[in-house]
Amino acid sequence: MKIETKVEKFNEPLYLESGRLLEKFEIIYETYGELNEDKSNVIVICHALSGSHHAAGRYADEAKPGWWDKFIGDGKAIDTTKYFVICSNNIGSSYGSTNPMSIDPSTKKEYRLKFPVLAISDIVKAQMKLYKRLGISNAVAVIGGSMGGMQALCYAIEYPTFAKEIIALATTAYTRPWAIAFNKIGIEAIRHDPIFKNGNYAKDDLKALGLPGLAIGRMAGLICYLSPNLFNKKFGRDYASTDGLYELFGRFEVEKYLEYNAYSFPKYFDPLSYLYICKTMNIFDAGRNKDKIEDSFDKVQANLHLIAFSDDMLFFPEEMEEIRDIMVKLGRENQVTYKLIQSQSGHDSFLVEVEKFENHVREILKDK
Amino acid sequence: MKIETKVEKFNEPLYLESGRLLEKFEIIYETYGELNEDKSNVIVICHALSGSHHAAGRYADEAKPGWWDKFIGDGKAIDTTKYFVICSNNIGSSYGSTNPMSIDPSTKKEYRLKFPVLAISDIVKAQMKLYKRLGISNAVAVIGGSMGGMQALCYAIEYPTFAKEIIALATTAYTRPWAIAFNKIGIEAIRHDPIFKNGNYAKDDLKALGLPGLAIGRMAGLICYLSPNLFNKKFGRDYASTDGLYELFGRFEVEKYLEYNAYSFPKYFDPLSYLYICKTMNIFDAGRNKDKIEDSFDKVQANLHLIAFSDDMLFFPEEMEEIRDIMVKLGRENQVTYKLIQSQSGHDSFLVEVEKFENHVREILKDK
Repeated sequence: MKIETKVEKFNEPLYLESGRLLEKFEIIYETYGELNEDKSNVIVICHALSGSHHAAGRYADEAKPGWWDKFIGDGKAIDTTKYFVICSNNIGSSYGSTNPMSIDPSTKKEYRLKFPVLAISDIVKAQMKLYKRLGISNAVAVIGGSMGGMQALCYAIEYPTFAKEIIALATTAYTRPWAIAFNKIGIEAIRHDPIFKNGNYAKDDLKALGLPGLAIGRMAGLICYLSPNLFNKKFGRDYASTDGLYELFGRFEVEKYLEYNAYSFPKYFDPLSYLYICKTMNIFDAGRNKDKIEDSFDKVQANLHLIAFSDDMLFFPEEMEEIRDIMVKLGRENQVTYKLIQSQSGHDSFLVEVEKFENHVREILKDK
Repeated sequence: MKIETKVEKFNEPLYLESGRLLEKFEIIYETYGELNEDKSNVIVICHALSGSHHAAGRYADEAKPGWWDKFIGDGKAIDTTKYFVICSNNIGSSYGSTNPMSIDPSTKKEYRLKFPVLAISDIVKAQMKLYKRLGISNAVAVIGGSMGGMQALCYAIEYPTFAKEIIALATTAYTRPWAIAFNKIGIEAIRHDPIFKNGNYAKDDLKALGLPGLAIGRMAGLICYLSPNLFNKKFGRDYASTDGLYELFGRFEVEKYLEYNAYSFPKYFDPLSYLYICKTMNIFDAGRNKDKIEDSFDKVQANLHLIAFSDDMLFFPEEMEEIRDIMVKLGRENQVTYKLIQSQSGHDSFLVEVEKFENHVREILKDK
């Protein structure tokens, strides 16, 4: 599989949903496989909150491959011998695309809290400019889970002729207060971390461990990304050490897991970026600026494939069913599929239980 | 209804499950109604994590009455014209019973992190000493929800002849990793709060606002005490202010709710006490020191009444069903009842949806 990582710089303004703009912006992106002559074999992959453009393959120095490596590759469900797969790092994210720690051209300093709030539609709009730059005018499919699924829905609604197949996994048409509440823990933990200094943190203060407040936020995320049953199966009531029971800070295995994963996160993720991305997710509403959400979905021309996970505790299957029901109500039952996966890994099932939906996706992409 | 608040001091050691002891201890408790001549009309109420001995009635300066005021009072399900109701503040809790900020007799200083870890069995053992002091040798019923339900189960198992009826609501026979994970957010947020100083915080530093880290922990609690549907119904996607949408810190109603309730909590709750109570809940296991959990429930002589709530996201109905199934397996089907309430307030339903189970409790207590 041919993998390339590139950056495209755009010296033109990106007008945002909020009415504000980014004077210029850049996108780092990765591609897998080869673009065919008539540029008709493109599949777009959209990443989630803490994901990046590195969706597949393994760099020389990496312990783990890209986040959807099980799914994307030669002969895999998203077959890179056939398709040219593009995954962009979302603007706002701190993996290389324009984000709150980028330089604001008007002040020559980092934006920090002066960075504009981005909507999912802004992220997708920036990606569309990338495709235009690459001479790509349409895609076989757009595929994404969680926040990536929000982007997939946005493509379907805002750019109805761009992709023939839209595959949205573990997502929602509008973020409910339950998900907003989980994000709130991170927002408050970051804001009240004394090192954060209202966004004016010294980079050196974050060099070794990152921002502890962000670890607390990540911990809340780790809970809603998994599920009670998975926790039972994975950890039970096992102790990480034998002296743990009557020691105040003696730890259960589940606590050790949360500590390890939460505290490693701020070492590679920027707290301002986290705040902005949470906001982007919180304000996602496919029905915004429409009288009713049906008006948005009425614009869809692609086939819309919804894949929900039975034990998803962040975006519940009912939220995906609601989208299906809207499409059916609009008389679009031939244009929508809904598949409920009997999952055991919670929200993260879209990342780790690929074997449960890869054949479904192969079927969708067959002969396309 | 006659209400009295009293303190009993015990100048004798309380030997703890951990092998450690409290050299002496005290309990603040409240009573409702009047003890009859043969002391046979006692009902014991056990409180939850952030509850107190003030279960019913309203003090002159109070905006809200006690936490189970809908349930306890003259003519109410727990009828104080008939019963003498006792609610003790759990040891470990900071409302007046011995807790980590009490004076350690051996050092004449506050225990702080030298306070011993308490088990649910220790809290109940201390309460049994109170009843003995009051000349009470048995009760009509022990009733509690959540952590109070753990205590109720402990009474049933450890003191099988004490009460005839045990009513446990919204609880579990052993705390699962899902609940431990939610507690972990608070534990970490408190430990990493610079004001906490490894438990040696200056009391003055907490005077105005309390410990911010505790607010973060409370926020995690507020999420798992409620439910996704309740959040949808209560808050939807409403904004607390009209400029909220594209302002980074613009707030949804759900965020406003969480902020208000989370940040008010540390003003009246001690962070060390919170850490110790989380630990007490985390280590609760009715099967501890037994080969199997059935051995514990085999000791039960009371009628065990389990009340679960359909949308409880902390202690799921399955956990209560499991207790029922254990009793049935032991051939005790005549000694156990299980009632699933179709609730809409999540875990907190045991506090706020009293109207849905009060008749059931009246039935249980009828002619007793």
